[in-house]
Formats: sequence, C-alpha cells, structure tokens
Amino acid sequence: MLEKRKPIAVGEAVQRVMEFAFQEKIEVVSLQQAHGRFLAEDVAADQDVPAFDRSPYDGYAIRSVDSQEASSDNPVAFKVVGEIGAGYVFEGEIGDREAVRIMTGAPIPNGCDAVVMLELTHTFEEDNQRYMSIKRSFEAGTNISYKGEDVQKGAILIEKGQYINPGVVALLATFGYGQVPVFRKPIVGVIATGSELLEPSDSLQPGKIRNSNAYMTIAQIERAGATFKYFGKFSDDLNLCIQAVEKALQEVDILITTGGVSVGDYDYLPAIYEAIDAQVLFNKVAMRPGSVTTVAARDGQLLFGLSGNPSACYVGFELFTRPIIRTAFGNKQPHLRREQAVLNADFKKPNPFTRFVRANASYENGQLVAVPSGFDKSSAVSSLAEANSFIVLPGGSRGYEKGMQVVVLLLEDLQGSEWPWGNIEKSYKS
Amino acid sequence: MLEKRKPIAVGEAVQRVMEFAFQEKIEVVSLQQAHGRFLAEDVAADQDVPAFDRSPYDGYAIRSVDSQEASSDNPVAFKVVGEIGAGYVFEGEIGDREAVRIMTGAPIPNGCDAVVMLELTHTFEEDNQRYMSIKRSFEAGTNISYKGEDVQKGAILIEKGQYINPGVVALLATFGYGQVPVFRKPIVGVIATGSELLEPSDSLQPGKIRNSNAYMTIAQIERAGATFKYFGKFSDDLNLCIQAVEKALQEVDILITTGGVSVGDYDYLPAIYEAIDAQVLFNKVAMRPGSVTTVAARDGQLLFGLSGNPSACYVGFELFTRPIIRTAFGNKQPHLRREQAVLNADFKKPNPFTRFVRANASYENGQLVAVPSGFDKSSAVSSLAEANSFIVLPGGSRGYEKGMQVVVLLLEDLQGSEWPWGNIEKSYKS
Repeated sequence: MLEKRKPIAVGEAVQRVMEFAFQEKIEVVSLQQAHGRFLAEDVAADQDVPAFDRSPYDGYAIRSVDSQEASSDNPVAFKVVGEIGAGYVFEGEIGDREAVRIMTGAPIPNGCDAVVMLELTHTFEEDNQRYMSIKRSFEAGTNISYKGEDVQKGAILIEKGQYINPGVVALLATFGYGQVPVFRKPIVGVIATGSELLEPSDSLQPGKIRNSNAYMTIAQIERAGATFKYFGKFSDDLNLCIQAVEKALQEVDILITTGGVSVGDYDYLPAIYEAIDAQVLFNKVAMRPGSVTTVAARDGQLLFGLSGNPSACYVGFELFTRPIIRTAFGNKQPHLRREQAVLNADFKKPNPFTRFVRANASYENGQLVAVPSGFDKSSAVSSLAEANSFIVLPGGSRGYEKGMQVVVLLLEDLQGSEWPWGNIEKSYKS
Repeated sequence: MLEKRKPIAVGEAVQRVMEFAFQEKIEVVSLQQAHGRFLAEDVAADQDVPAFDRSPYDGYAIRSVDSQEASSDNPVAFKVVGEIGAGYVFEGEIGDREAVRIMTGAPIPNGCDAVVMLELTHTFEEDNQRYMSIKRSFEAGTNISYKGEDVQKGAILIEKGQYINPGVVALLATFGYGQVPVFRKPIVGVIATGSELLEPSDSLQPGKIRNSNAYMTIAQIERAGATFKYFGKFSDDLNLCIQAVEKALQEVDILITTGGVSVGDYDYLPAIYEAIDAQVLFNKVAMRPGSVTTVAARDGQLLFGLSGNPSACYVGFELFTRPIIRTAFGNKQPHLRREQAVLNADFKKPNPFTRFVRANASYENGQLVAVPSGFDKSSAVSSLAEANSFIVLPGGSRGYEKGMQVVVLLLEDLQGSEWPWGNIEKSYKS
C-alpha cells in the first residue's frame, strides 16, 4: 500500500521541531579554550575600564596650568621629578612646573591633569637634573583616558548565548574570566541508511555510490557548533536497525539518520519510528529539495530523518537541525540568517513548492547578489561545495527573473535570524 | 635618546611581510576530521557522477515506446517483472509492456529509458502476477539521471588551498577521500609583555590591568585557522626575555609578542630584535590604530611585535599575521575580504593616517552598511566584541559623512581577498 503523506509548510514544520528545543547544561572551560563556544551567562564588568585615569601615550604628565604661557617663542621648562612605567603607581607630590615621565598605560600621578606626548617635548639636563620643555599650552584633560570612560563597573557587556569571538575573549580576559562558563556542545548522532552505500575509502561497485551524506552532515553539525558521533551504516535487517536506534538514542542528544525516508518499500524509517514509539511530527514538507524530510520525537528527544539525496539532506539539516543546536546554546537567533539579495540569473522553472536553491551570494558594490551554484538537480553534489546560501523561491506558477529581489538564507554566518519564516511570500510582491 | 621611526604605507608593510610567506607541510587526516581545514591538493573526480544512469525517484522503469498509447481513457498496463533497490543491479531482459519496480538511486535496467513516478501509477494483481497501469505517455529520458551529468570523471572539482566546508566534505566522500591531505596548521607562539599585566584570574591591583591581548590573539590565531602556543608573560629582565624568545622560536613557526613595541624606555622589543640578530622589516606604519606594529624576521622566521593596546593589537594581527597564516594553507585569497559599504554614521575627525575603524557591518535591503562599533578610542576593548569588520578611512584633511561609500574589510569571512590594498584612496574619489 502506498502511504499518503500530507505536506505542511516549511515555517510550520520548523515550528513543530522548535517545540522540542532544549537548553544544554553548562560547563566551564579555560579562557584559552573559549573561542568558538557560546557564553552560558551574562558578562558584567567587575571593574571600570580604564580602572584608573591613565595615559594613552608615552610622554610627560603635567599640571596643565603650568603650560599656559608656553609658545614657540617662549618654551616652558619642567623639572622631571620621576618616572612611571605601566603597572606602577607614582607616589610623590607634583609641584609648580614639575613633570613625571609616564609610559603608555601608566596611572596619571595625583595633581597632574594632562599628558604631553613625547614627540612634542625637548629634553635636557642641567646640574644633573633632567628637564623637558614644551612650546605650546595644553588644556586640562589632554591625553588622559579617564576611569570608566570605556566601560562602567556593573554594566552588562555580553548576554548569555553570545558566540565567543576574539573580541569577546578580550572582554572576558579584562573582566576576570580565567575560566568561562559555556554551554556544553550537544552530541548529535548520525546513522547512514541505504544498501547502495559504500564508504568513501571503498572502491566503486556497480549500482553503488559512496556515502557522502553522513560525512557532510558531520561537517554541518560541527559548523553549527555541536559535536558528532558517527554510528556507521544501518544493517539491512529491520530488527537490528531498531536496536541500533535504541542504542544510539542513549548516547546522543539528537539523532540524525540520512536516507530511508522515502515511501519506497525498502525504506525502514517509518517502521523504526513505530517500533520505538516515536511521534512523527511531520513526514512531508511543501518544499524542494527535502520534501520527504521526517522529524520524530520520543520522550522529548528528536530524531531527524533527512533525505538520502545530498542536496535535500543538506537543506533539511540547515532548516530543521541547526536551529535546535543553536537554541541549545541559548542563542536568540538560532535560524539561518535571512537577507534580501538581487537574483543574478533567471530561474524560469515554475514550481508549486517553495524552493531552496543553493547559491553563491556575493557583493557587487556592496549589494548582495545571489547566483544559483551550478547545476541544480537535487542529486548534484558538486554545487554544494561552492554554496554559501540558499535562495528561497516561494511556490507559484511564475518563474523568477534576473534582477528580482529575492530572500536568501546565509549559511556561513554567525549572526543568524530570530525567525526568518514570516512573510517570505510578501517580500516577493513588490 | 628618542628613536626616530619612519612610517611606511599599510600596503607596503603588508608586502614586506608577505615576502616571508611560506607554505606548510602536508598531513593526512580522516574525512571526519577534515571540516575547517584547507585542502593540500587539487581534487579530481575519480568517477562520473552519477556513476551510472539512475532513477531519481521511486517508481517503475519502462520502455517509453510502450507508453505511447496510454491516456486517461485508455490506461496501459505493464507486467511488473522485477524489482530493484538502490545498490542492486537488475540483470534480466525487459520485454513488451514490461516494467521494473525501481527505487530512488537504483540503476536503470538495460532496455528501459524512462521512469514513471510511483504516484502516477495504479497497481493491481491478476493470477498472482503484479501489474501497474498508467494513464499518460512518457518520453524517452523522463526521470533518468544520466551517467556523468553532474560531474565527469577527471574534472578538477576543487583546488588546493580551498577551505573544507560541509559541501566540500560531500565531494571528498563521493570521490573516495576517506583520508584527506590537508595543510598542517602553523604553530603561532604568543608572548605577552608588560609589567602592568595581571592574568585574567588575578584580582585587580592599583595601576595594573588584566592581560587581554594574549588571549584575544590566541582566538584570532584560531579564527585564522592556525594553532597557538602560549608562553605566558615576559620577565622584566632583558636577558631572560632574549632567552625566552630564542626558546620560543625553536618551538613555533611564527612568534607574536604583544606590547613592548612603543618608543618608551621600558619597551624591550627593539633590544631583543638586535640581540637575536633579527632584521626589522618595519617598526612604524602610517595607520591608526597600530602605528607602532613592528615586524622582524630571522632566518626566514617572522616575529610580529603587536601593540600592547587591544585595538591596535587586533588590527595588527588581522592585517599582517592572518595573511601569512592563510598563505601557509595555499589559500589564494589570504587577506581580509574587501567590500564596498555605505557609511552609516558621521566620522568627522580628520586624520593624517589611514584609519581602521572597527565596525559592525550589516545589511539594509541587501546593501552592506557599516557603523563604527561604539566608542572609538584605541583603548576601547568593549567595541571589539561586536566588531565584524574594519571601515578603512584613508588619511586626509576631510572627515567622512554618513551615506558615503567606504571600503570595509570583513573579519568573520572565509572567502578573503587576493590583495585588498590597491586603489583604496581612489575608491573614495567618486
């Protein structure tokens, strides 16, 4: 009997999956290991930055009032009464026309209110005493970085869920995070299905193909920020498959299978979902490629049944699995980043379903333009390598023409979208 | 004595550094570990894709000629003489009005030249024999993915130096790369300098600051694709510093020091370069921040003396160290990616030097716009966290106004530029 499946809209499918979103546990890593992880707590400033009034330059700290009469005709000399390196504090008192040699980053001595850059001074010695002279006046506050002018103590600087880039690392170091609380990486399991599959290192055999989907998916899992566990290929025996799934579910947070989701006689996934008592959230989505993407849940744990077709598998992961992973990191923009772009090729083929056309997005004078990457049959593996985005083409009877505004979803991006699925059709009406 | 330094232009400084570019050795990793690395050889197709004529759908393989009389009034029945799953080959002969049940991905049986999708067929049994009938005709070639239509054997698919993303992983799997030759990650050493530095886990002390540069630089090294070795902080003793540098140079490919490059009395780097007989390529660049960035070389090995100031340190790494790392991977676009953007804020301050303003670049209706990120003093650490780009503002007496076209360099990008330094001034003339 041929099973009848009812397709649902992409946005609704994503919504059904997101109801099973979970947040990961927290673990603590050293600051050296924090890059690329996601912060598990808000970061507040434990100090003002700068923590004290300091000099941004090498030079001389002075009292500005002493410089008021200086001019090129009338240089004013200051007695150099001390010197202060970064990391040290000058303890003395400053009198009339006295200056302190000061290094970049050192605290401004009490009484001083300006720093003269080294380049603007002339130094000399008299009677074993060092002097420096200047030829212009300086206002109070010149070349002083004031306490708290960059960051004030107590300010929330970064919110939980933020991706830790090098700038965030600098902030963490500044505010005392030698150890950093980050979200644990979810473990995403991968099982490949298909009697036709050879491993990449196998020689070709008639009728068989090498398993590319499992390895591609592993890379997508890593790009999303999670960690993978690869369980190899399903047996041809249904009972062994069921056991394999049960065992894998114990060891992972999320389980992905590639292949086996079509309505063909040999496709085991529906039988496995039934046997393990998983609830199928959907098994058909009104989109191309990836229409047979199936997602099921058992005891709150998600099972993603991605297509055996490489492009469909790729799209299914990015639309449905990626946002679950990013949500586990507390990230508030877990979905692919949505932007507008100019379509830079004709796409005449009308299509009743929403299409996700893998594409290369680039700039022309700062304007985002998107070109379908190569050959666009859903079996085409060669175009995935150069794709950095999907062009989203809503279903309809018309084709799309070069120069039209289209919606694109960016793949190699750290920013993401909160919810890219609203009003896509509308943005094509203008 | 105050040392006089002659600033050189940014492009020239980068050029001097790039003369010391090197290519890394090759190592072989398993396909599961290849994501995020850089390919060390061209990848050619070892087979056609598809490797045989195959079915893209579940359905029935037929001889199209047998379907020519089928219509809704005149269904034509086919005897189902076999069934063929993906991974298997049908060995039999096909006669008049015979069909073979075929699964997605299975090879087309000899003699067949079309596949009818399952949904368009009606199946029934008579005398224990299965039949299927159709109500329309099909042309030769319908629903057949032909051998080699995606990729032809021998084609160069990916060039050496390519970043390995999930799509590239799929290609590598398809073409038999169970093991992948990649460029080794250069080891980049980091030494922090400065008596004022505390470690991130230390409590604050008067006049001191926490060491953020070394940790930030470590994250930048990782973002560039290399691996780091952190040697901690320099001693205050010059001889010990010289020994530390000599030792570090044995253990790394590239050595970065942060701080100690100003002209202040306490800055040891010039003395260290002299002591170890390193050739200083430049010690002053006509740019802000980062003007004191110093690069030296000894026996072909580069020593990057980055500024102690966080923003200057950050810029110095991205402009000078990153391209060396990417070149080590055979990458042909090793520099930061250069694009045009609309300046989305006034930047009135005239400046004699080229400025690199850390900025957040985003899209407005597909147009790249750039806004300086927060407070722009060079000491400001808080703005680095949100920066994803630099706005490049050539030196000149005018300021820049909101709405002007500016050049931006994108930081979180895998594509890069071949040489972003040509004609920057010119692109501001229009």
